[in-house]
Amino acid sequence: MDFKKYLNEQCLVVEQALARYMLPEEGGALANHIKAMRYSLFAGGKRIRPILALAAAKALHAPTEHLLPVACALECIHTYSLIHDDLPAMDDDDLRRGKPTCHVVFGEAEAILAGDGLLSFAFELLSHPEARQAIPPADQLRLINLIAQAIGPKGMVGGQSLDLAAEGQAIDFAHLRLIHGCKTGALITVSVQAGAIFGQASEEQFAALSRYGVQIGLAFQIIDDLLDVEGTTENLGKTAGADAQRHKATYPAFFGVTKTKVMAHEAVEAAIAALEIFDAQAEPLRALARYIYERNN
Amino acid sequence: MDFKKYLNEQCLVVEQALARYMLPEEGGALANHIKAMRYSLFAGGKRIRPILALAAAKALHAPTEHLLPVACALECIHTYSLIHDDLPAMDDDDLRRGKPTCHVVFGEAEAILAGDGLLSFAFELLSHPEARQAIPPADQLRLINLIAQAIGPKGMVGGQSLDLAAEGQAIDFAHLRLIHGCKTGALITVSVQAGAIFGQASEEQFAALSRYGVQIGLAFQIIDDLLDVEGTTENLGKTAGADAQRHKATYPAFFGVTKTKVMAHEAVEAAIAALEIFDAQAEPLRALARYIYERNN
Repeated sequence: MDFKKYLNEQCLVVEQALARYMLPEEGGALANHIKAMRYSLFAGGKRIRPILALAAAKALHAPTEHLLPVACALECIHTYSLIHDDLPAMDDDDLRRGKPTCHVVFGEAEAILAGDGLLSFAFELLSHPEARQAIPPADQLRLINLIAQAIGPKGMVGGQSLDLAAEGQAIDFAHLRLIHGCKTGALITVSVQAGAIFGQASEEQFAALSRYGVQIGLAFQIIDDLLDVEGTTENLGKTAGADAQRHKATYPAFFGVTKTKVMAHEAVEAAIAALEIFDAQAEPLRALARYIYERNN
Repeated sequence: MDFKKYLNEQCLVVEQALARYMLPEEGGALANHIKAMRYSLFAGGKRIRPILALAAAKALHAPTEHLLPVACALECIHTYSLIHDDLPAMDDDDLRRGKPTCHVVFGEAEAILAGDGLLSFAFELLSHPEARQAIPPADQLRLINLIAQAIGPKGMVGGQSLDLAAEGQAIDFAHLRLIHGCKTGALITVSVQAGAIFGQASEEQFAALSRYGVQIGLAFQIIDDLLDVEGTTENLGKTAGADAQRHKATYPAFFGVTKTKVMAHEAVEAAIAALEIFDAQAEPLRALARYIYERNN
């Protein structure tokens, strides 16, 4: 398959769906709030999470059009987490995707609210009637429950809390793995699971796709750690070297760059191995795993 | 009915359910995050929103036990909104329910995350399998969708954005009503609607309960404005006079105290009038409307 073409096409599908579902710009009283949400949502993200959901449904030979509200919700959740993580009280980052962060442009209060608004809106999309064209309501509820868990206190938000608490602390590798698993891994894994549910996966298929999701979540974060060491602010679109500056525990800090690369590669191989029960329709998932390893931003 | 006894009983029911569903305190890595959420959630709130949901279901002669996860979710959402509203970047309040606010005790970063965690956790509760003991999955999805809308960009979060933008600005009464309707009214109205859905309300009953919800939401906010003028920091448990200090538009600022009281009373009467199709099982809803008018904190 021509992966680059696939990625561009899928990215466009997601962009168009986001444009369709997201509140349009308006001149009314809410203009500023909507502008702040749209500013971060349409800042040129790679749309990895929605694309993973679409690719997982495809691996199960399922049509993906009615999955789009859910796919967009995953991107809204990811964007909200970036806006809040970048706040002065959190990581205090000025640059994201090569642009000034939301609070730099709209102020701190509106950035907090833009995040809150995107998170609430995500659940409006997750409960969207369109999903019922493809899956029974009980499955849609199961998906909402899985996503809420993945991004809540025992998932993404908890991971960010752990991450902040660990800054400048001596933590062991098990703790680093826990932080990564919660903060980054949980949303990536549940994105794959969303596609699995839309593809009406059997228990075996769901378990396999979940294993894939866990491993690419891991690979994603290891590479993120590496890019922070090896990348430049220009190609990353965010401040390079920020982890070291904040004395954050990372894979390279634990294992050095060479071994870290090996570990990322192993995670990608494990992800691809988890897909052995699937046929050629899972090729995009396999290619996405390799892409996560090879990406440079 | 003995309303005081009813209120105490219902409050206890909600407290016990919150204790049952909420993550327990733990000694592990997430200890601080969970502590921050629990600190604000168990700070002695009046539990008006969950009690409204329970009372609406009761007005429809429906059992309420399987509604409890949803009732608790409404309180989690309310608490998250208070935590974020109190942040230094927002209203910058140090006191809430007579205690130091979340960010004063746990720091700004953890307060943002405690709010985010509670909001995510609320949707875990809203999609809780227990609701399916009482209502079909499609109704549960409808409820999640209504709640997400009520608290999102066109509801509560949007209202807070409007409120911040209006500080110190000359706004007209229509705009004040819009702010109140979004910021406070939407969550109160949807709390009543949650009970209506659990009570399998007919279209006519749903419309009547929605009208009731809109009117008590209005009364609630008018009285809030009044209490800010007439109450003391001690009985309010939050800083009295904060609105005037922030040059916020309020009902008393527009109409004076006497006319404002009349308007609150009219809203309560309209709320009660909306319930005329219901029998004596709606008495708690009627009493709650009167209570909102008479409350002093």
